[in-house]
Amino acid sequence: MLRLNPGRRLLAEFLGTALLVCIVVGSGIAAQQLSPGDIGLQLLENSTATVFGLGVLILLFGPVSGAHFNPAVSMADWLAGRRRGAGLTTGALAGYVVAQVLGGVAGSVLADIMFDRAAIQISTHHRATTGHLVGEVVATAGLIAVIFGLARTARAALSAAAVAAYIGAAYWFTSSTSFANPAVTLGRMFSDTFAGIAPASVPAFIIAQLIGAAIGLTLIGLVYPATGPEPHHSQLKGALHE
Amino acid sequence: MLRLNPGRRLLAEFLGTALLVCIVVGSGIAAQQLSPGDIGLQLLENSTATVFGLGVLILLFGPVSGAHFNPAVSMADWLAGRRRGAGLTTGALAGYVVAQVLGGVAGSVLADIMFDRAAIQISTHHRATTGHLVGEVVATAGLIAVIFGLARTARAALSAAAVAAYIGAAYWFTSSTSFANPAVTLGRMFSDTFAGIAPASVPAFIIAQLIGAAIGLTLIGLVYPATGPEPHHSQLKGALHE
Amino acid sequence: MLRLNPGRRLLAEFLGTALLVCIVVGSGIAAQQLSPGDIGLQLLENSTATVFGLGVLILLFGPVSGAHFNPAVSMADWLAGRRRGAGLTTGALAGYVVAQVLGGVAGSVLADIMFDRAAIQISTHHRATTGHLVGEVVATAGLIAVIFGLARTARAALSAAAVAAYIGAAYWFTSSTSFANPAVTLGRMFSDTFAGIAPASVPAFIIAQLIGAAIGLTLIGLVYPATGPEPHHSQLKGALHE
Amino acid sequence: MLRLNPGRRLLAEFLGTALLVCIVVGSGIAAQQLSPGDIGLQLLENSTATVFGLGVLILLFGPVSGAHFNPAVSMADWLAGRRRGAGLTTGALAGYVVAQVLGGVAGSVLADIMFDRAAIQISTHHRATTGHLVGEVVATAGLIAVIFGLARTARAALSAAAVAAYIGAAYWFTSSTSFANPAVTLGRMFSDTFAGIAPASVPAFIIAQLIGAAIGLTLIGLVYPATGPEPHHSQLKGALHE
Repeated sequence: MLRLNPGRRLLAEFLGTALLVCIVVGSGIAAQQLSPGDIGLQLLENSTATVFGLGVLILLFGPVSGAHFNPAVSMADWLAGRRRGAGLTTGALAGYVVAQVLGGVAGSVLADIMFDRAAIQISTHHRATTGHLVGEVVATAGLIAVIFGLARTARAALSAAAVAAYIGAAYWFTSSTSFANPAVTLGRMFSDTFAGIAPASVPAFIIAQLIGAAIGLTLIGLVYPATGPEPHHSQLKGALHE
Repeated sequence: MLRLNPGRRLLAEFLGTALLVCIVVGSGIAAQQLSPGDIGLQLLENSTATVFGLGVLILLFGPVSGAHFNPAVSMADWLAGRRRGAGLTTGALAGYVVAQVLGGVAGSVLADIMFDRAAIQISTHHRATTGHLVGEVVATAGLIAVIFGLARTARAALSAAAVAAYIGAAYWFTSSTSFANPAVTLGRMFSDTFAGIAPASVPAFIIAQLIGAAIGLTLIGLVYPATGPEPHHSQLKGALHE
Repeated sequence: MLRLNPGRRLLAEFLGTALLVCIVVGSGIAAQQLSPGDIGLQLLENSTATVFGLGVLILLFGPVSGAHFNPAVSMADWLAGRRRGAGLTTGALAGYVVAQVLGGVAGSVLADIMFDRAAIQISTHHRATTGHLVGEVVATAGLIAVIFGLARTARAALSAAAVAAYIGAAYWFTSSTSFANPAVTLGRMFSDTFAGIAPASVPAFIIAQLIGAAIGLTLIGLVYPATGPEPHHSQLKGALHE
Repeated sequence: MLRLNPGRRLLAEFLGTALLVCIVVGSGIAAQQLSPGDIGLQLLENSTATVFGLGVLILLFGPVSGAHFNPAVSMADWLAGRRRGAGLTTGALAGYVVAQVLGGVAGSVLADIMFDRAAIQISTHHRATTGHLVGEVVATAGLIAVIFGLARTARAALSAAAVAAYIGAAYWFTSSTSFANPAVTLGRMFSDTFAGIAPASVPAFIIAQLIGAAIGLTLIGLVYPATGPEPHHSQLKGALHE
């Protein structure tokens, strides 16, 4: 993984995060237009599309970059790796986060263009309530636990299906519909549609996500204590060596 | 499995059952709020989220504890193992059941908090009719048959997907929406929402579930007679050795 | 396979077909009760439950009996095997068909009991139109093509997922909602609910299904000509030898 | 693959494309009839049936023809192969495209017959807006990226599930509901129902699809540069050699 061309890894993180946000925002717009009478049905359409799309994106870009698409995942990888001399370097972490955030914004703009809307909008959808912030903590803790729990038990090849399924559940069981991703959260500011989030709600969401990531990493440390050098995290590394 | 730290196994059963109930109750609350006009649509949203979440939880905690999350499964494991000197010990069974029940209650409370509701409530949803109790017998018999049928044919690696899919069907084809789990049943008393169950209905449900578990184990004994020592039951053991 | 106790094979075919019909009929009743306002939503709930349940039943009983649950599949297995001295014997075929038909009726009765309805009813749902009969021909041809196409290419381990997915599509793309199974058709006569079929429609449906099976087997013979002895058909045989 | 009987390969492409269009159009008719009150629900029923059906068709016909069912995929295979002396020959490409287009039309006619409608109709559903054409570019780029990205990383065995899931997402996140296939687009002209497309919209859709295919192939070249001879593309080749 570390021998890969850095440009290709950053391109993969940019494209993957852009397409992820494009899927979330685009399917949200479609759902809102086509099922105006029932918000739950809109969310079911939105979450079903996201499950399918996220799973495919992890499969597609995993072998290049690890398919993080998420600064919380990259930070956890960096942090877990620091303790054992593995994982993302600090420089790679910075590159990943920039690529992810730019991707998140680009994906939102692409979705708006496809649906014949103004390319750049600012969402007015306020979401920061106490319950929603608890929801983001839970959602991100679970996401990190799934990714690193599978990696520690040598089952990263299952990550594409497992992460997609987890998000499919978390859309519904968390009160916040599970953003669980700072880059996606920033990207979703730029579409004033079903999946948007008002800028005022973003800082609290991101803080809750980082708290959740720390909790998730801690829980995995209790359930699956690391016993050797941490493998460089790749959600799909296993798939290549089956 | 038996060499694992007992505390980590009990933590896994506690967390797994808590998150399972949190998924069932939380997605039920979301469905009820977002799709007020159609109870079937609410149940579809609730069951879809549960399928995704349960599959991931079995994947995540299977290597530690076997991912029972269910006293009926643990009792069947203990019972099947006693005959052949394998399975959970009586002490481990007691620990599992306590961890599962505490987890079930904690999950209900967490869901209520995320959705800005009173943390502890008592459900008023009465469910004990003759048809529903027959439903619980059928639901639990099928669940036990799936888990132990796969284990006896050395395909426990498929349990995460198969158990999740089974519950996805049983939500709909049983009249009771398939609780099929005494710990989850107890936990769901503590949320007066879509997925709740009134305390007065709980004893009959649990009795029906234990009858169903016995029937399921008997049927599997007829279809797949045990021919050697029963392997310690782990829904995911196979996944680790592929 | 042929060394297995015949009683266990017939028990597996009886239980599997009974549970399949119980899933189809039971989830149909639930859908009709819970989503009274939209027949399409009822069918989506019904088909989703069937996809999950059918996949699990094939996994569960495949190693014992091949998980046919369907006289059209058993007849095709017998017919394809005759040409090469393999497959079900004529006696086994007779036993399979009887077990499947009895199971189909039992499953319908069980569903009615679970939902607090009269145990034995006769459906008044007339379905035999020209379009529906063409639909049954197409549905059964596709089903037989999927099962035997995977078997001929040594991928029977994928049958549980593939057959379930096929039926999930065929519920919708055929006009008849894809019965595609004489035993299930006979069983569904005995519940006057969403998934029922009036006795007067049954003979034409079964004839259409057998025509479809012959077409499916012929198409597979063109696309994947048999080049050696036909392996005894088991939808899951491959799973045991992975 | 190249040693296979050419007739069988063309038969597989014809049957696969016909059944794909039959699934798309047929489930669209069923959805429109059964869920008249909500277009989004119709699309959810339509897309769910397509996901299941497409995955099965790729599994079924992959070993014979590569399961392209899509002139854009065949052209990309031919183009990528030319550079390295592999892939479809020019003659095989011509045969594939003819078989696919004939299949697309046949599938539309079959769906109309099953639903007791006039066998040949011309759609009046105009779809060519700027947003929709951008949608087709994005949809086809993504489809080509998924297929060739998996092939370049030796994971073509995952194509059946990944391509089906991708289309399940693309139905929703693109504004055009993701035709992404010239043969399917031509076929869908011949049914004046939910999934139809007016002839006047077809040329622009096909041009957008070919532009998208070129973009997808270019992106995959950046992320996964080819380092050796391109393997002959088969979405399922890997499945046969696992």
